[in-house]
Amino acid sequence: MSTLPTTHKQWRLASYPESLPTEDNWALSEGAVPAPGANQILVRAVYLDVAPYMRGRISPQKNYAAGVKPGDVMLGGGIGEVVQSNTKHYQPGDIVVTDFGFGWQEYAVLQPSGVRKVDPALAPLPYWMEAFGLNGVTAYFALLDAAAIKPGDTVVISAAAGSVGQIAGQIAKLGGCRAVGITSSPGKAAGCRELGYDDVVDYRAEQDDLPGAIRKACPNGVDVYIDNTAGVISDAVMQNLAPHARIVLVGSISLAGRFGQPDIGPRFHRQTLIARATIRGFLVSDYLPRYQEARDRLVSWYRSGALKSKFDIAQGIENLPRAFLRLLNSENVGKQLVQVGDDPTAASGLH
Amino acid sequence: MSTLPTTHKQWRLASYPESLPTEDNWALSEGAVPAPGANQILVRAVYLDVAPYMRGRISPQKNYAAGVKPGDVMLGGGIGEVVQSNTKHYQPGDIVVTDFGFGWQEYAVLQPSGVRKVDPALAPLPYWMEAFGLNGVTAYFALLDAAAIKPGDTVVISAAAGSVGQIAGQIAKLGGCRAVGITSSPGKAAGCRELGYDDVVDYRAEQDDLPGAIRKACPNGVDVYIDNTAGVISDAVMQNLAPHARIVLVGSISLAGRFGQPDIGPRFHRQTLIARATIRGFLVSDYLPRYQEARDRLVSWYRSGALKSKFDIAQGIENLPRAFLRLLNSENVGKQLVQVGDDPTAASGLH
Repeated sequence: MSTLPTTHKQWRLASYPESLPTEDNWALSEGAVPAPGANQILVRAVYLDVAPYMRGRISPQKNYAAGVKPGDVMLGGGIGEVVQSNTKHYQPGDIVVTDFGFGWQEYAVLQPSGVRKVDPALAPLPYWMEAFGLNGVTAYFALLDAAAIKPGDTVVISAAAGSVGQIAGQIAKLGGCRAVGITSSPGKAAGCRELGYDDVVDYRAEQDDLPGAIRKACPNGVDVYIDNTAGVISDAVMQNLAPHARIVLVGSISLAGRFGQPDIGPRFHRQTLIARATIRGFLVSDYLPRYQEARDRLVSWYRSGALKSKFDIAQGIENLPRAFLRLLNSENVGKQLVQVGDDPTAASGLH
Repeated sequence: MSTLPTTHKQWRLASYPESLPTEDNWALSEGAVPAPGANQILVRAVYLDVAPYMRGRISPQKNYAAGVKPGDVMLGGGIGEVVQSNTKHYQPGDIVVTDFGFGWQEYAVLQPSGVRKVDPALAPLPYWMEAFGLNGVTAYFALLDAAAIKPGDTVVISAAAGSVGQIAGQIAKLGGCRAVGITSSPGKAAGCRELGYDDVVDYRAEQDDLPGAIRKACPNGVDVYIDNTAGVISDAVMQNLAPHARIVLVGSISLAGRFGQPDIGPRFHRQTLIARATIRGFLVSDYLPRYQEARDRLVSWYRSGALKSKFDIAQGIENLPRAFLRLLNSENVGKQLVQVGDDPTAASGLH
C-alpha cells in the first residue's frame, strides 16, 4: 500500500449510555499511528464490526466480559491488511481478522496470537467477519451443541435476519429442521425467506396476537428456540413450547434500553415445567477450543453453495456510532459492518 | 379385619377454586362400598395423601395430567390393606400403595397393575407414601439425573422441609454437596438442620433482603437449585447463580393462589445467559421406567440409617381438605398425610 500516515482517527467512549446509546456517547479523536513492537504487526482496518454484544460492554453493570471505560478506544472486531510486521509469521499485504481486538480505529498494533490469517481466495472479506467469524460460530454451536437439533424439529429463531440469525436459519435447514424466523419488517422477512427460512413472523405486524401468529407458524409447537432478543418476542414463543423444548439464550437485545432496570413481565415457570423444557444460557467463548471445527465447516458450506450471508455495509469511519445505533434500532438488513478503508482483495461482488 | 361396612365416606370436588382453595371446594358424601370385579381388589385406606400437585388437578387450566371435575371423587394416593381379592396375586391382609389411584375415600376397588405390594417389615407405612413414593423418587431423579449433582456443588432447595425437599437435602449430602434449604419458619429450619442441611434460610425472616441472605449462605454462588416454589424465592436464588448453574423446576406452589393469572415479576434472562445456567422443567413421570431403581436405593439408604423423613399426620377422613389447606399454607412440618383407618402393622414408632 501507499505511504503510512502519521495520524489516524479513533472513536473513544465519551460516557456510559443511560439506556439506548446516542452518538454523543462516543467522541472521534485523532491519534498517532502506533509503531509495532517486537513480534507485533501494524494492521490497517478495512471492515470494522458493530454488534449487539457491544451494548453490554459500555455499561458499568456486571457482565460476562470486561467493559470499555470512558476515555478508552471503543472495542470491536475488524479485518484488515498487515502494513508493517516484526514477526516472520506475517508479511505486509496479509489479511488478518480479530474478533474483539481491533477497536474503532483506522490502525491497530496487534499480537499475532490475537489474529487469524484469512485466505481471501475462499470468500469475500466480510464473510470472515460474520459467517466464519463469531456470528457463524455462535449459530453453529447454539444449534448443533446447546440445542442439539434433530431432523424434524421446529426451530424458531428471533432476530432471524440478524448476523447470528441468518446463519442459524440455514444451519437449521442443513440439519433437516423446519426453520421459522421472527423479524421486524417485511423487507427482513423477505430476506429470511431468500436464505431458506420456511416461514417468518413479522413481530411488529403481528403485535396484536404474537403468540397466535407463532402458533400458526408452528402448529406442532416449538421444539427449539434460539433466543437472540428476550422480551415480548420470547414471551410469545414461551406460550408455544412443544414437550421437551430446548431454549438457548444467545442474546437479549430487547433489553438494551433497560440496563440497570430489572426486566419485568410474565414469568414462564409453569409452561417450562409442564413442557419439561430446557433453558440454557449460552456464551460462545465456552467453545473456544472448538472454534476451528466450526469455521472449517462454515467455510465448506459456503464453498458448496449451502450457506450465504446478507450484509449491510456503511461507509467511512465517521459512521461507526451511527451504524451501531442502526443495529440497536434494527434498521439494518443483513450483518452490519463499516468499511473504513480500501478493500485490497478483488471486487467482492457483495455490493 | 372385622366385618366390612356397606357404606363409606368420600370427598368429592364441589367446585373449582378460584385462587387458593377453601374447604367449601369439597363435599363429604356417603357411598356404597364397591365390590371388586374379576381380577380386582378391594382396599381399605390407612393413610391418604395430600400434596401440592393436587392444586393443579382441580383447575380447568391446561396441565400436564388430567384433572378432577366437580362431582368426581378427589384423586390422591394412598396406602391400605387388601380386604377382598379376586386375583391370586393378592391376599386379604396384604399392604398395597398407589401413587394417585386411591382417591379421598375409605375404600377403593383397584387393579393389581395400579398398586405395589409393600413389605411393612422394611419400614413404617408412611415411608412408602413419601421417601419410597413419588416424593422420594422425584428428589432422586431431580438431583441425580436432571441436576446431575457433583461433590462440592452448593445445592439450594426451596420448600426444603416439604415432602420432596426433606429427601432432596439428604440426597445432596449423600452426593457430597453442600445443602442449603429455604423454608418458612424457625421450626422448619430446625427440622431441616436435624436432617442434615448445612444451612437454612428462613425466607419470611429474611424477606427484607432475601438475595443477600442466600448470598451469605452460598458465598460461592448456587451451583444447583431445586425449585419447588417459583415466585419471589426463586427470584432471589436467580440473583446468586454460579457459572454453569443448573436449575430444576420441580414445583410452583407459590403460584397456587394465582391460577389463570400470569405470574408477573422480574425475568432473569441476562443472569441466566451470563451464568450459562440451565433451567429444566421436570416431571417425575418421565422417569417411570426407572422408578424401581430409585425406590430400591431409597429403601436401602433408609435401612442403613442414611435417610429419614419427618411426617405430619392428621387424623380422620373428615380432615382431608383441612390437611390439604394446611399444606398450601405451609403450616405442616414434614410430609402431610391423613390417617383414615387403623394401621394394621406393628406400632410404627413415628408418632
